[in-house]
Amino acid sequence: MPYVNIRFVREKATKQQKAALIRGVTNLLHDILKKNPATTVVVIDEVDPDNWGLGGETVSLRKKRREG
Amino acid sequence: MPYVNIRFVREKATKQQKAALIRGVTNLLHDILKKNPATTVVVIDEVDPDNWGLGGETVSLRKKRREG
Amino acid sequence: MPYVNIRFVREKATKQQKAALIRGVTNLLHDILKKNPATTVVVIDEVDPDNWGLGGETVSLRKKRREG
Amino acid sequence: MPYVNIRFVREKATKQQKAALIRGVTNLLHDILKKNPATTVVVIDEVDPDNWGLGGETVSLRKKRREG
Amino acid sequence: MPYVNIRFVREKATKQQKAALIRGVTNLLHDILKKNPATTVVVIDEVDPDNWGLGGETVSLRKKRREG
Amino acid sequence: MPYVNIRFVREKATKQQKAALIRGVTNLLHDILKKNPATTVVVIDEVDPDNWGLGGETVSLRKKRREG
Repeated sequence: MPYVNIRFVREKATKQQKAALIRGVTNLLHDILKKNPATTVVVIDEVDPDNWGLGGETVSLRKKRREG
Repeated sequence: MPYVNIRFVREKATKQQKAALIRGVTNLLHDILKKNPATTVVVIDEVDPDNWGLGGETVSLRKKRREG
Repeated sequence: MPYVNIRFVREKATKQQKAALIRGVTNLLHDILKKNPATTVVVIDEVDPDNWGLGGETVSLRKKRREG
Repeated sequence: MPYVNIRFVREKATKQQKAALIRGVTNLLHDILKKNPATTVVVIDEVDPDNWGLGGETVSLRKKRREG
Repeated sequence: MPYVNIRFVREKATKQQKAALIRGVTNLLHDILKKNPATTVVVIDEVDPDNWGLGGETVSLRKKRREG
Repeated sequence: MPYVNIRFVREKATKQQKAALIRGVTNLLHDILKKNPATTVVVIDEVDPDNWGLGGETVSLRKKRREG
């Protein structure tokens, strides 16, 4: 009955990749902690690069700087 | 002064239903725990079915399988 | 399959009150949005008054000021 | 290595304002708690006014009432 | 630079199991989405069974009923 | 009416430091986005070093390795 929230910057993640991530995390929780997959909830939040900060800077600015 | 976060798969929830949910949860917190409605915050997140997993599978795949 | 997170300052909430809150929120989601109670997850976080701020001030300071 | 999540109603916040917020919060964590800015993550969620409740009412209804 | 929050009912999870979970989720994010492990944050919240609800009932009550 | 959640590893943060953090974040939201301090909620979660992972490793293991 775990709840997992995965958040990352929206880029190019496909449906297939997100499905693989959900399957993988659910399996890990079962393999390591015997958590029941049937009631394991995994929610992915894809966040705009203007809204994600690392090192005091938005991801969109970090990218621009690196490319510029 | 409670904070409530309600997350579910985006489907067809109307403004009226979301308003009723916010009113209902705020009232519950007041009735049961005497929490002050004036500072009770309720935030609803509607999540893409590709980003919500249950039983190790995305909701969009579960639906497709059931209908298919 | 909704996930609800209820956060409030730790005070004197009893097991019975918390159980009533969980039941009430689960029923609301069923009554208003037809969400399946069997997979509705509700998690309560009770937070230390030193760790909760409102109006730029911790709840523990607000209480002290009011009582003092 | 802190994680900060800032949520508010989506209005007219610009990229510059969001960048300033991320910089400011990261600096605060460094100045007050010596947390390393390089691994400080700040994520902003801008929420639809129909999905944000205060005082048992959505923000969109509160605004309509005030203006109406 | 992802942030992952894993929440489950506090039971008997050991340090080793929690470390394995953190390693596993970080690897998944790298293998599937090429996310940089160095800035991947994983936070585990172990929740009191009185504070976790499923099916409208706390986990502590569900257990008591099953055992009783 | 913003909600801010600040999470970091439990170390030696004092009441005064946490109060300063809450005041600082509330002021930032007012100065940058004109958010009303009276309804700004800030919640701090201090997390056990066994439950916080960075770089695929728990903070408690990282520390032990560095000191060992």
